[in-house]
Amino acid sequence: MRELLDAVASGELSPAEAEARLAGYATTDAGRFDAARERRRGIPEAILGDGKTPTEVAAMVDAALETTGRAVVTRADDGHVAAVTDDLAAGMTVDHDERARTLVVEAPGFDPPDVDATVAVVTAGTSDAAAAGEAAVLARAVGATVERVDDVGVAHLGRIVDHLDALRGADVAVVAAGREGALPTVVAGLIDTPVIGLPVSTGYGYGGEGESALASTLQSCTVLSTVNIDDGFSAGAQAGLIARAVADARRGDDA
Amino acid sequence: MRELLDAVASGELSPAEAEARLAGYATTDAGRFDAARERRRGIPEAILGDGKTPTEVAAMVDAALETTGRAVVTRADDGHVAAVTDDLAAGMTVDHDERARTLVVEAPGFDPPDVDATVAVVTAGTSDAAAAGEAAVLARAVGATVERVDDVGVAHLGRIVDHLDALRGADVAVVAAGREGALPTVVAGLIDTPVIGLPVSTGYGYGGEGESALASTLQSCTVLSTVNIDDGFSAGAQAGLIARAVADARRGDDA
Amino acid sequence: MRELLDAVASGELSPAEAEARLAGYATTDAGRFDAARERRRGIPEAILGDGKTPTEVAAMVDAALETTGRAVVTRADDGHVAAVTDDLAAGMTVDHDERARTLVVEAPGFDPPDVDATVAVVTAGTSDAAAAGEAAVLARAVGATVERVDDVGVAHLGRIVDHLDALRGADVAVVAAGREGALPTVVAGLIDTPVIGLPVSTGYGYGGEGESALASTLQSCTVLSTVNIDDGFSAGAQAGLIARAVADARRGDDA
Amino acid sequence: MRELLDAVASGELSPAEAEARLAGYATTDAGRFDAARERRRGIPEAILGDGKTPTEVAAMVDAALETTGRAVVTRADDGHVAAVTDDLAAGMTVDHDERARTLVVEAPGFDPPDVDATVAVVTAGTSDAAAAGEAAVLARAVGATVERVDDVGVAHLGRIVDHLDALRGADVAVVAAGREGALPTVVAGLIDTPVIGLPVSTGYGYGGEGESALASTLQSCTVLSTVNIDDGFSAGAQAGLIARAVADARRGDDA
Amino acid sequence: MRELLDAVASGELSPAEAEARLAGYATTDAGRFDAARERRRGIPEAILGDGKTPTEVAAMVDAALETTGRAVVTRADDGHVAAVTDDLAAGMTVDHDERARTLVVEAPGFDPPDVDATVAVVTAGTSDAAAAGEAAVLARAVGATVERVDDVGVAHLGRIVDHLDALRGADVAVVAAGREGALPTVVAGLIDTPVIGLPVSTGYGYGGEGESALASTLQSCTVLSTVNIDDGFSAGAQAGLIARAVADARRGDDA
Amino acid sequence: MRELLDAVASGELSPAEAEARLAGYATTDAGRFDAARERRRGIPEAILGDGKTPTEVAAMVDAALETTGRAVVTRADDGHVAAVTDDLAAGMTVDHDERARTLVVEAPGFDPPDVDATVAVVTAGTSDAAAAGEAAVLARAVGATVERVDDVGVAHLGRIVDHLDALRGADVAVVAAGREGALPTVVAGLIDTPVIGLPVSTGYGYGGEGESALASTLQSCTVLSTVNIDDGFSAGAQAGLIARAVADARRGDDA
Amino acid sequence: MRELLDAVASGELSPAEAEARLAGYATTDAGRFDAARERRRGIPEAILGDGKTPTEVAAMVDAALETTGRAVVTRADDGHVAAVTDDLAAGMTVDHDERARTLVVEAPGFDPPDVDATVAVVTAGTSDAAAAGEAAVLARAVGATVERVDDVGVAHLGRIVDHLDALRGADVAVVAAGREGALPTVVAGLIDTPVIGLPVSTGYGYGGEGESALASTLQSCTVLSTVNIDDGFSAGAQAGLIARAVADARRGDDA
Amino acid sequence: MRELLDAVASGELSPAEAEARLAGYATTDAGRFDAARERRRGIPEAILGDGKTPTEVAAMVDAALETTGRAVVTRADDGHVAAVTDDLAAGMTVDHDERARTLVVEAPGFDPPDVDATVAVVTAGTSDAAAAGEAAVLARAVGATVERVDDVGVAHLGRIVDHLDALRGADVAVVAAGREGALPTVVAGLIDTPVIGLPVSTGYGYGGEGESALASTLQSCTVLSTVNIDDGFSAGAQAGLIARAVADARRGDDA
Repeated sequence: MRELLDAVASGELSPAEAEARLAGYATTDAGRFDAARERRRGIPEAILGDGKTPTEVAAMVDAALETTGRAVVTRADDGHVAAVTDDLAAGMTVDHDERARTLVVEAPGFDPPDVDATVAVVTAGTSDAAAAGEAAVLARAVGATVERVDDVGVAHLGRIVDHLDALRGADVAVVAAGREGALPTVVAGLIDTPVIGLPVSTGYGYGGEGESALASTLQSCTVLSTVNIDDGFSAGAQAGLIARAVADARRGDDA
Repeated sequence: MRELLDAVASGELSPAEAEARLAGYATTDAGRFDAARERRRGIPEAILGDGKTPTEVAAMVDAALETTGRAVVTRADDGHVAAVTDDLAAGMTVDHDERARTLVVEAPGFDPPDVDATVAVVTAGTSDAAAAGEAAVLARAVGATVERVDDVGVAHLGRIVDHLDALRGADVAVVAAGREGALPTVVAGLIDTPVIGLPVSTGYGYGGEGESALASTLQSCTVLSTVNIDDGFSAGAQAGLIARAVADARRGDDA
Repeated sequence: MRELLDAVASGELSPAEAEARLAGYATTDAGRFDAARERRRGIPEAILGDGKTPTEVAAMVDAALETTGRAVVTRADDGHVAAVTDDLAAGMTVDHDERARTLVVEAPGFDPPDVDATVAVVTAGTSDAAAAGEAAVLARAVGATVERVDDVGVAHLGRIVDHLDALRGADVAVVAAGREGALPTVVAGLIDTPVIGLPVSTGYGYGGEGESALASTLQSCTVLSTVNIDDGFSAGAQAGLIARAVADARRGDDA
Repeated sequence: MRELLDAVASGELSPAEAEARLAGYATTDAGRFDAARERRRGIPEAILGDGKTPTEVAAMVDAALETTGRAVVTRADDGHVAAVTDDLAAGMTVDHDERARTLVVEAPGFDPPDVDATVAVVTAGTSDAAAAGEAAVLARAVGATVERVDDVGVAHLGRIVDHLDALRGADVAVVAAGREGALPTVVAGLIDTPVIGLPVSTGYGYGGEGESALASTLQSCTVLSTVNIDDGFSAGAQAGLIARAVADARRGDDA
Repeated sequence: MRELLDAVASGELSPAEAEARLAGYATTDAGRFDAARERRRGIPEAILGDGKTPTEVAAMVDAALETTGRAVVTRADDGHVAAVTDDLAAGMTVDHDERARTLVVEAPGFDPPDVDATVAVVTAGTSDAAAAGEAAVLARAVGATVERVDDVGVAHLGRIVDHLDALRGADVAVVAAGREGALPTVVAGLIDTPVIGLPVSTGYGYGGEGESALASTLQSCTVLSTVNIDDGFSAGAQAGLIARAVADARRGDDA
Repeated sequence: MRELLDAVASGELSPAEAEARLAGYATTDAGRFDAARERRRGIPEAILGDGKTPTEVAAMVDAALETTGRAVVTRADDGHVAAVTDDLAAGMTVDHDERARTLVVEAPGFDPPDVDATVAVVTAGTSDAAAAGEAAVLARAVGATVERVDDVGVAHLGRIVDHLDALRGADVAVVAAGREGALPTVVAGLIDTPVIGLPVSTGYGYGGEGESALASTLQSCTVLSTVNIDDGFSAGAQAGLIARAVADARRGDDA
Repeated sequence: MRELLDAVASGELSPAEAEARLAGYATTDAGRFDAARERRRGIPEAILGDGKTPTEVAAMVDAALETTGRAVVTRADDGHVAAVTDDLAAGMTVDHDERARTLVVEAPGFDPPDVDATVAVVTAGTSDAAAAGEAAVLARAVGATVERVDDVGVAHLGRIVDHLDALRGADVAVVAAGREGALPTVVAGLIDTPVIGLPVSTGYGYGGEGESALASTLQSCTVLSTVNIDDGFSAGAQAGLIARAVADARRGDDA
Repeated sequence: MRELLDAVASGELSPAEAEARLAGYATTDAGRFDAARERRRGIPEAILGDGKTPTEVAAMVDAALETTGRAVVTRADDGHVAAVTDDLAAGMTVDHDERARTLVVEAPGFDPPDVDATVAVVTAGTSDAAAAGEAAVLARAVGATVERVDDVGVAHLGRIVDHLDALRGADVAVVAAGREGALPTVVAGLIDTPVIGLPVSTGYGYGGEGESALASTLQSCTVLSTVNIDDGFSAGAQAGLIARAVADARRGDDA
């Protein structure tokens, strides 16, 4: 940093350029900074509905729309959805996924990012749909193409085999599973695509809040990384970051 | 019980017969009772080496040999083995499985049980060998035929497919696995043979003492039952009890 | 697998036969596969009501009835039951066990499996009735005869003694217990029938969500295997698998 | 307290008497106070060997002998024993229980307490001997008669039945058990004597450090209280306190 | 047991006497046995309301009244109370403690036990009142005199000092506390009366469901035994068993 | 204490003075003692609303107002607030913070403490507002000046940098954070002011009840101390105690 | 799969080609399959030293060298290293990293993979060196360039700022941290490169086996995925998979 | 930060001054920064011996001495001590506390900080000596006066009362306790000095690794903050920070 400051002092670097170089961590207004980041890189700042009142969520959606042209709400309940949609200016595009509990609002002028890469989102059963859906919404918000492969739980291995080509064709895969959480391990043993495990909080008694599925992704005898239980947001956004890195390389625009 | 006591009082039933009918829970000498049970049904009372001195184990082996003609020691370390084998009368047969840490001693006149049924013992990898070996020794001690299917971890699903016939041909299967413990679930999804999961204490950090593998057998989305972590004794003995029930039915000798 | 493929290539084996041999894990339609399995072996695919909407459950029941002639719903609440029964075609048989929260629907042409073996289902007290009931429904769905032995908690050991003959006469026993979960251990010490422990989530404070009862079945100083807390489905289905193996042997129809 | 201070001020009460009335919590020298307590009531202050050097233990033994005429060391290893016994003045009585890891030293003039009551100390198996032995030593140090009932694990219920008279004849019972810890519950269901559960740290994997046994005593469906895992000291001392209360009542010397 | 059976066979012992001697564990009707026990020794069989329907509780109350003349319901909610009281025959005495959630019903002819001993029931604060109240009701049901010492939390040590005489005068003390659970330890350090810790489920975050208070009673550096979190039933009944042992000794009627 | 009692006996010390010296722990009326403490030192005794009925809280508020002139209620729900405010005498000042769930009532004559020191209260995001608000209310009740620094989560480090001067200027800082709880560590690495971590119960799955945030404050690689999850009361009161110690030193009025 | 089998039957597809298409999951010899995978894609099968004897590890190294030309051993102790290196044929290249406990052996003809992408491996302090080193070795074995950024713990935020360019220039970053594990979150808040958290088992008491660091990566308020505690193997291999996906895209060789 | 950069650009602020203002988080050499911090404020950067080789510790000690004139090593074993002391230049002052496992080395020119404030360090028993000693060494290193109050466990409340004046006279108190950890709560209830709880890892079974003591400090019904189990470093350093804040205020040198 001393070199940077020396350069600013000597006039080699303008304060604005210095701020731009330091933009990742130092700015007077967090909102503006986030706007810059999303416009430039396509990773949206999501608004977590859980624990917030409808009024708070609606206010944050307004702020996000003003500064970035888009608002992504996760864990949105009916009250959140009503408060946001009642409150919207004309011309807004609203995409509400009831199962995934997500709400994406885009302002008229919003130019969505376009990432030339595919994220596979895989579920073991219907009870994984909420978390997997959240992941899919986030990956799409980054601009990636999402390919869903649903209901391929390890009790019916044949189904997975039928979808190996789709899984191998993806650039990164999010694999959701509850109960014993074996699916991410089985999938990662069959393909070379990077796999992100997404443990889901379904199950009985011991380990039944998703700890068993989480332990399985953490202990996997194959290679994968994981996110927290039901954390579709992190799974989808991390898959989006990887997809974007691949897409950047694909079009020769390296990081 | 009142009827029983009335019958003894009236002379309809001799005290010895009454004792025989009550033998499952009431006798003055536990050792003799166990002898009766093993001679009749073939389930050995095992001596757990862990936490006992070599001298104690050797004394218990002597008692088991005297009363039942056979002694089965589990979790036997070198000291236990030395104490037992130094101490043996002539004519004894000794079978020491170093990996399984078991020691089976049979007196000259011992007539081993013979159960016409097969127990498959399956492992995901070499680190499951100790627990699986203990299970195999116990199942064999009951008199069952044991078929080993080793090193078929879910990272290489093809190996499991190669052994499906062997697994389907068994009357009951013990499936051992550490790490994420997916193998028992995958196997139970492929066959209709009853599966007993045997979680093994291998792994890293979170859930790495076998809790992750245990959680996977308890949460399995297929049908199976389980035993505690590394409890090859219970897995093998329970498989033996089931094998014996099947064998009894097979030869028309119902429970 | 190579031999199989060589055989298909040389015409020794038809593709259909190859598929049949691989049917356990490879088929294009999971539904059809399950139908085949249940029709042939009698193990129903159950629909877990928890976490599903009434509409979803009703749709799955329709699919199950179409493909297998029977639908088994577990953890069914009033909404599930209403949605399923309102939706039924004529001629269906409905069996709703309110306490066990199960719902079994059979189509007119359904030929229930018949397994010549007995499953004992044992409870320590009235609070075990829901889990034990679920186990009984599943064991019956497999075709086994179920014998209930209720309210024999270890605080009154005499009751257990009164039922030893029934327990010894069964081919396999499911023993449910909450609180300290001692009953499966006590029963397994008194009989030679294979025992499956079914821990129940009743209790106070420490270990009171069923962990104490689960720990007792996992740590039992007698021989038994266990299922997860309140997992009557697995207990009953596993008992059913064992009962069927015994019944197959009994009529000389080996696995 | 104000009345007490007023009484001292007015001379109604001497400072010494005031101190005597407050002796439970207020004195300048803890050692002296403990001496008073043990001489009067018979509850020894034990020295926990674990975590102390041999030198420290020996110094504390000296202090205990000087002030109370007796020293009780628990969790004593060979180094502690050597340091204490090498260091002893002539005429001391030494009682070292290797299994219980206790060391009791009495000075020549020591007059042991005598409590006319019986404490039963019960074990499920040999692995409970250390904790149960510690309990027995403490109960004896209080002056109670100790009756041992060993090796009556629930896998052999008949053994317990054989000892019911001894258990019913005791004034209080300490019941030790590891693994699933069912014995204290089974015993407390058979007798009306107050039972103190003593969970022991034996077992496999899940709950195998004694948590399973502890959970069983805490969740017992019969009436009992418990102490911590392997805490023979508290079990024996608490049994001693109860025995002494009974003995005081027996000889008309009420608390 | 063999001797017993021989004696019955030889006529030395009548079947009825044999049954009496075995009454603790062997009888054909649990209800009758319990009646015998309570009439003789005064320990009521309590009906736990939690998890039972009002109808079930009312039916059990009827059974208890018929066989023992008294019914004790714990964890009774408004529905339980209404169902029981609506259902009562004339002449019944009803005692409902709303805070303790207990309901005691006595039939006209019931002769309550009378135990000449005192149980102190101590609380740290108002949030301990429910558990402590349950303990008091149980101790009174056994026939003991209960002395309440309330609101003496360790944040105000002076309060405890004011009640030392009462605590020392009791034959046994139940000490309830939530949060950090220090009170049972502090009390047991001040008096020689046997103390039973009763941890209460009050607190914040880590350990806040009563685990912290439970750990404190289990780890206490003074001598005490404990029951599970909020288990006022066991605390009161165990205190009652000790009080009765003391009272039996006091009147020369030894166990 | 003996010296004290000797001094009272000899007349060197009056009973009143003796009581004053012992006032911290010995008095016949806890209420009076607390009044003395707050009037003298400014630390209010708070009334925890959780687990108390509105009637109980209102009664305690009356008692607090009578004896200390002020009542502080934490975790107050709408029922508590209504019961207290409906019940108030004229002239009372009421301050209800809905988010922090606190209610502070002051009697007309109440002279609030004034502490010349500043407590910074820092949050990572809006979900920390409740716990942080409770801390702020308590610190203000002690008399300290509170400076809020909100919404400076580590995802936007620049925000923290902008507030370093405010943080360095405070005498003590309470730093609240949920999720991974990194903020207290980051702040404590940037300033030399004593930091008290306040973990908040926000998050997903594993560690999501605040355990993760608590673990981060306990494991911090910088220097800080912590309070329990969501325990704004302790954080604010402890900060108040430190602020008062600083303020006392600042005006030369040492402890 | 049916289409595949039809195609083999009709001669459209040779058995060898069919096997090749199915190679991910079905082959008769796991060793051969792995060789194929590594030669083609560059992900080595690692041999975990922990829990294996030196002899076993040496035998597995031989097998790996024969089939793939390279052997990677992790968690290698001195005995493993000696057994492997004593046993080697001439011409082998050995790379032993003592701190990372890895051993990489390459046969003379081995052609290492070359991946045109960079993996940043970041540590908070020296105690993270072992896990981070293991990650670096694996990433290098995949063929990626590894850039180390060491000792940038959050107690000294300035150090991280100095390395932002290096971190932003990498294609993927592995960030290791023990204690409170804040570093992965702080880094992921500063850069847009995908971050894989690697929690390390350093710390005190509560959460001190790495659970605290793991919880922080799972609960991170920024976007990242994680691996298990100390699982440098998975972190490095997953980073390698992502790097290879990027490199494939970079040279137009899409998955 | 923009203002700062503008000021540097315009020449109003020199780069050096800018760096000084940013010194808390931005510098090219962590060592130099730490030196500045300690020289200025007196908080030493400690070297944790655990997990480091003697050579590593000795090298870090050299670096610390060169840059700050002092090195503080915690958790130092014999190897660490030997490596450091063998390696020292002439004139160094060495202070090794064997029990606390600390090693403080000062270079000849070192001018130790002097803080006019007192830290009380309190222990319940001898097993708390190590953690408390570490706290004392750290508080002294900050320059505070340390007053030890040892062996005042709550089993002997009188001892605490004897030391109340000392505790009240201190500016801040560190109170260490293992087992049930009641002492910090009891002390904080008696004095108004800020108390930092220091839980110690002594105890039996459940909660016996210090979790019970930690839970007690976190759940305390009095006001205190806490550090992790056995974390004498944080307790002592935090007490030092508070002492310094008080001392600064005392001499009119406000933060």
